[in-house]
Amino acid sequence: MATVTVGAVREKAPGERRVALVPEAVTLLRRAGLDVLVEAGAGSRAWFTDADYTAAGAAVVAPDELYARADAVLCVGPPDTETARSLRTGQTLIGLLEPLRHPALAQELYGRGVRTVSLDLLPRTLSRAQSMDALTSQASVAGYKAALVAAESYDRFFPMLTTAAGTMRPAQVLVLGAGVAGLQAIATARRLGALVTAYDVRPESRGEVESLGARFLDVQSPPPEEPGTERTGYARELTADEQHAQREALDAHIARSDVVITTAQVPGRRPPLLVSAAVLERMQPGSVVLDLAASDLGGNVEGSEPDKTDVLAGGVTVIGAGHLPSAMATAASTAYARNLVALLRHLVRDGELVLDPADEITGALMGGERS
Amino acid sequence: MATVTVGAVREKAPGERRVALVPEAVTLLRRAGLDVLVEAGAGSRAWFTDADYTAAGAAVVAPDELYARADAVLCVGPPDTETARSLRTGQTLIGLLEPLRHPALAQELYGRGVRTVSLDLLPRTLSRAQSMDALTSQASVAGYKAALVAAESYDRFFPMLTTAAGTMRPAQVLVLGAGVAGLQAIATARRLGALVTAYDVRPESRGEVESLGARFLDVQSPPPEEPGTERTGYARELTADEQHAQREALDAHIARSDVVITTAQVPGRRPPLLVSAAVLERMQPGSVVLDLAASDLGGNVEGSEPDKTDVLAGGVTVIGAGHLPSAMATAASTAYARNLVALLRHLVRDGELVLDPADEITGALMGGERS
Repeated sequence: MATVTVGAVREKAPGERRVALVPEAVTLLRRAGLDVLVEAGAGSRAWFTDADYTAAGAAVVAPDELYARADAVLCVGPPDTETARSLRTGQTLIGLLEPLRHPALAQELYGRGVRTVSLDLLPRTLSRAQSMDALTSQASVAGYKAALVAAESYDRFFPMLTTAAGTMRPAQVLVLGAGVAGLQAIATARRLGALVTAYDVRPESRGEVESLGARFLDVQSPPPEEPGTERTGYARELTADEQHAQREALDAHIARSDVVITTAQVPGRRPPLLVSAAVLERMQPGSVVLDLAASDLGGNVEGSEPDKTDVLAGGVTVIGAGHLPSAMATAASTAYARNLVALLRHLVRDGELVLDPADEITGALMGGERS
Repeated sequence: MATVTVGAVREKAPGERRVALVPEAVTLLRRAGLDVLVEAGAGSRAWFTDADYTAAGAAVVAPDELYARADAVLCVGPPDTETARSLRTGQTLIGLLEPLRHPALAQELYGRGVRTVSLDLLPRTLSRAQSMDALTSQASVAGYKAALVAAESYDRFFPMLTTAAGTMRPAQVLVLGAGVAGLQAIATARRLGALVTAYDVRPESRGEVESLGARFLDVQSPPPEEPGTERTGYARELTADEQHAQREALDAHIARSDVVITTAQVPGRRPPLLVSAAVLERMQPGSVVLDLAASDLGGNVEGSEPDKTDVLAGGVTVIGAGHLPSAMATAASTAYARNLVALLRHLVRDGELVLDPADEITGALMGGERS
């Protein structure tokens, strides 16, 4: 019987500490009948040694051997040019390839006859694909880490503490964006005892926010001409005056928060600007603003830059936190590797890697349908 | 009627971000009838502006004016030589002066006729002195911060998380020393969802540890000749064999912990060595060890240095965290200033600073009796 061989490469992007497979995942893949190669040193920045991989049943090999033998090459982020050139016709590359953001790379791989499976193209509404959802697993890590980094930067306590010398008030934390990352940031700040408020443009996120013990911020004022029908306010287009009032209400809340965590990301597109420089100036000295959406394309916070922390003249610390999953590399890699194992279980049938464009999941990941 | 004037100086020690008075404390002292001076810029590293102090009722002044006018000079750490020389006969210096550790400074001040009130000499068993207990308030900040710094350095989750891709196990955190700092570290790690075990040589700390949801580590094996009387094991001297067995049990637990936080400090003396280099080598790659006792005198962890983080060859991160209260300067200063307000309420009577060596609290703080 044929055997599928997969190979996890060492990530080359600067600052990237994650690895596509962890030893636990190697064990699961071996049990499923796959052969597993791991590039030497691939896991070292996530604290996995070559010996750990060998013990789990992988062959630790040099890059040349990996590219020669692997049917599917496994990575985390999009490969660099050199890695892309090492791939050959008929080989499959699986990772968070972001083809929409890197069209030239997608073109190059297509030209070389390399098939690509981009985990970021997963249809997120299919419940049977949830176990493969790497964007979700990485966002969950990012949200937890965002709350920790913010708490560590903040020079007061998150929880309310009562001591012999009196009471310390709890921190007022505001989370903007209540997606996967935002909800995990809310949960973590709540664990630490902070008073948490959250806001999302999707009113349906109110229930999730409140179930975590946080308050959902009401910035949507009921339309004056329809005072009793708040609900209809969501459906129709807001007038310029209403938009202005909404913006003012949000800004006022940001200005009086101790810690603001912004998490509004749109894959491949410029993140929405949620915190302006003018509002940053209104915040108290010692406040902390963490922008999880900070990227080359911009962020949610005016002036934030990825992997850079600035203390503004007014004493507000702005943290551009663009790569939080990599900053918690062991957990992020473990979760990502589980997503890959679930995907490979879906793709491998009778010892063959089957890439069926007609399959709802596989077709989407190959770029055939984009959700 | 006479008025007591107090003056809070700007701390000169490198890396010290705390300040003796915060605006809230100025308001309380003014209300108690004191005049308050604050050296310009004194609070800036703890995010308090000169304008904040002025608004609270303090006069923001240059150092010369402060030393000329203040009856009592308020500081956090022991003053540098220049500050000590600025003080004059009859003036009182109040702070964490550590006279046992800085005998030359104590001598110099005594020689100049400066009276000293050292908060670190407070009798910690007097319940009416609890509100003045600065060692406790600062240890509480240090313990919270220790857990946060360790969580932020650790590349996995502290809590157990259940996701579509499976369960992430909670971190195993071990806290050595269950004093004020240790208990706060336990409480914070528990808040974050870690499984916490703690150990202290004082068996009576078991109740406090368990009340925080942590497990108290049993390393005291019942003496073989008295198998049924575990309790008597604490009272008598341990034999060499028993000590060895106890050490082995503790080492084994350290070696399998993900995160170890050590908090065993003895004021003015060398901290006990709790984690040896041999045990650090037995820990898993990715483990984190934070030594809250790291100091010039040594620490609880072999090789730890204050304010230095090392990644050992075996992948264990050792954090020498010697100055955690200063690293959370706003909370630490606020708590410390409350201790000072309580102390000044005790010392000021009818508009006079009364330093009565016969008073149980005051006498101890002046060095007359040491507990």
